[in-house]
Amino acid sequence: MASPSLRQYSFQVFRDVPPLRQMRRQLVLDKKTVGFVPTMGALHEGHLSLIRQAAAENTDVFVSIFVNPTQFGVNEDLSSYPRTWDSDVAKLEQLNDEFARLGDDTGRITALLAPTAKVMYPVLPPSSEVDGDGSFVTITPISRKLEGASRPVFFRGVATVCMKLFNIVQADRAYFGQKDVQQTVVIKRMVQDFHVDTKIKIGDTVREHDGLAMSSRNVYLGNRRRAVGLVLYNALKAAENAYNSGKLARSDILDAANGVTSQVLSEQQALSPSERALYEVDYISLADPDSLDEVESVDPAKGAIISGAVKMTPLEETKPGEDCGLGDGQVPVRLIDNLIFKPRS
Amino acid sequence: MASPSLRQYSFQVFRDVPPLRQMRRQLVLDKKTVGFVPTMGALHEGHLSLIRQAAAENTDVFVSIFVNPTQFGVNEDLSSYPRTWDSDVAKLEQLNDEFARLGDDTGRITALLAPTAKVMYPVLPPSSEVDGDGSFVTITPISRKLEGASRPVFFRGVATVCMKLFNIVQADRAYFGQKDVQQTVVIKRMVQDFHVDTKIKIGDTVREHDGLAMSSRNVYLGNRRRAVGLVLYNALKAAENAYNSGKLARSDILDAANGVTSQVLSEQQALSPSERALYEVDYISLADPDSLDEVESVDPAKGAIISGAVKMTPLEETKPGEDCGLGDGQVPVRLIDNLIFKPRS
Repeated sequence: MASPSLRQYSFQVFRDVPPLRQMRRQLVLDKKTVGFVPTMGALHEGHLSLIRQAAAENTDVFVSIFVNPTQFGVNEDLSSYPRTWDSDVAKLEQLNDEFARLGDDTGRITALLAPTAKVMYPVLPPSSEVDGDGSFVTITPISRKLEGASRPVFFRGVATVCMKLFNIVQADRAYFGQKDVQQTVVIKRMVQDFHVDTKIKIGDTVREHDGLAMSSRNVYLGNRRRAVGLVLYNALKAAENAYNSGKLARSDILDAANGVTSQVLSEQQALSPSERALYEVDYISLADPDSLDEVESVDPAKGAIISGAVKMTPLEETKPGEDCGLGDGQVPVRLIDNLIFKPRS
Repeated sequence: MASPSLRQYSFQVFRDVPPLRQMRRQLVLDKKTVGFVPTMGALHEGHLSLIRQAAAENTDVFVSIFVNPTQFGVNEDLSSYPRTWDSDVAKLEQLNDEFARLGDDTGRITALLAPTAKVMYPVLPPSSEVDGDGSFVTITPISRKLEGASRPVFFRGVATVCMKLFNIVQADRAYFGQKDVQQTVVIKRMVQDFHVDTKIKIGDTVREHDGLAMSSRNVYLGNRRRAVGLVLYNALKAAENAYNSGKLARSDILDAANGVTSQVLSEQQALSPSERALYEVDYISLADPDSLDEVESVDPAKGAIISGAVKMTPLEETKPGEDCGLGDGQVPVRLIDNLIFKPRS
């Protein structure tokens, strides 16, 4: 990371808390409002969409970039998480240009918080061990479900770093993408249970033209796995169609999704190793929107969340000149996605 | 508890969060400062001392009274914790009278927060089980030491409720008594690790004329156990004398303390059951002031904390007309106390 203090941006860059607090306090006295968009960098259109929403609803937008070590399990992909400071900052500058053209009707990005690990974890080193020591926020049982089943420290890490960031920024509103739906449920629960004085706003999942959910990890896919990876979205859409056509039973809705994932996998398996992209379905879940408990049938007054995770395994053989993505098709990519079944009366 | 809303006090009484937030926000705009004294009620001179300190350093003092279920273990004394709403409120009113006589140099108690359990634990019922579900703050390893060794959920409950209260009150300063020294270390660590924007201030332990530390639990002692219970303070003073006379080795310092507890116990055991008060020493600890790790010798540049816990067992026989305290001498009373060994150069 280039030293952020050496350049002038259209927003202030903070690497530590006290100067940010000073700015924040003045904004309170000036009756400005702060919308906060926490990120791990590698900004894509999904993040930019949240920042646009934050700017539309607040005078000041604070963005944070911090790749949080405690949410990556000991054997997970912290080291392979993309770090793209220069292009991230460029995207934020472009957004501020865009906001300037919109005039006074929209806010501006006025602060970028890019703290060091020592600022965020000042006493003990950040532990990723399930039994590791430190200061943590745990939100159970919802953190053990779905994504938490295969990533036991993930939501502890997310909740912990968000509590820290919320306390630092003291935002009026904080923005999260619906794509990480379990994260939104955990954070909303944390804010409710701990009386955090920040309103949580959820932005729609931003998708490519064909429906693939935007994700920082998509850069590892390459063309072949990118095309096949759409299977998750298509499976969820099939389930949504079942719900929209009147189905409420778990089996009816999940059968629709599982039919898609099975068929596409069969098609791929019939191809040669240099043509195909294989995957493993981690889960397809039909859950209560608040508790994330699996439901046997959808309560039409509450709706439900259909969500899934699919792991795109490394390409077995690549072809000369093929675009295989960052890491040459050898990095496994876990895709997640979800759709909200709205209540119907 | 009498319904607090039916009476007029010199401070506002809040049972829920939104109206308190409204008052708090106006105080920010008016550039007032808030000092916060969280309590579980049963106010004694120790609390009043903290409130006086808070009033001396802030324009507004917020007091909370909430007997927090998650810090009492499943088999602990939640139900026997004294609840004394009317006398607590009377003491706060007397303090405000006192502050009024002091004029503009001191602040006033302007808010009393007495939330319901449902406000503090809005989603899941508050769990006291070690493996219970809920939203918790954990601060390890310091929460497992000393008091935490025999009370495994205690500091999780304390940290959790304090994070909630800190988020609700958003105080400039929060006040804790040194008597619960491990609590002060846990809370200071939590504030540091989670960047809570509240300064933690520690008030000296307030003692009876003979040195017994004030505690809400002392009402259960009665005269006989009250007199013998002074053994803990005397043991810690003996250790302090050893340190002040130049001793640094753990054995030298702890021998001084243990000598006192052994001798007093022998004296009591020689008396008849109707005359004596027996006790069990839970621990006497000589620990690093930040990590609470036991030390083999005191680093004179850092100092140390000598602390202890003694359990006064129920009286075996009582005499007619004897003042045996609330519960007639049958409630076991766990006394804790500590002294800080200041660094010396």
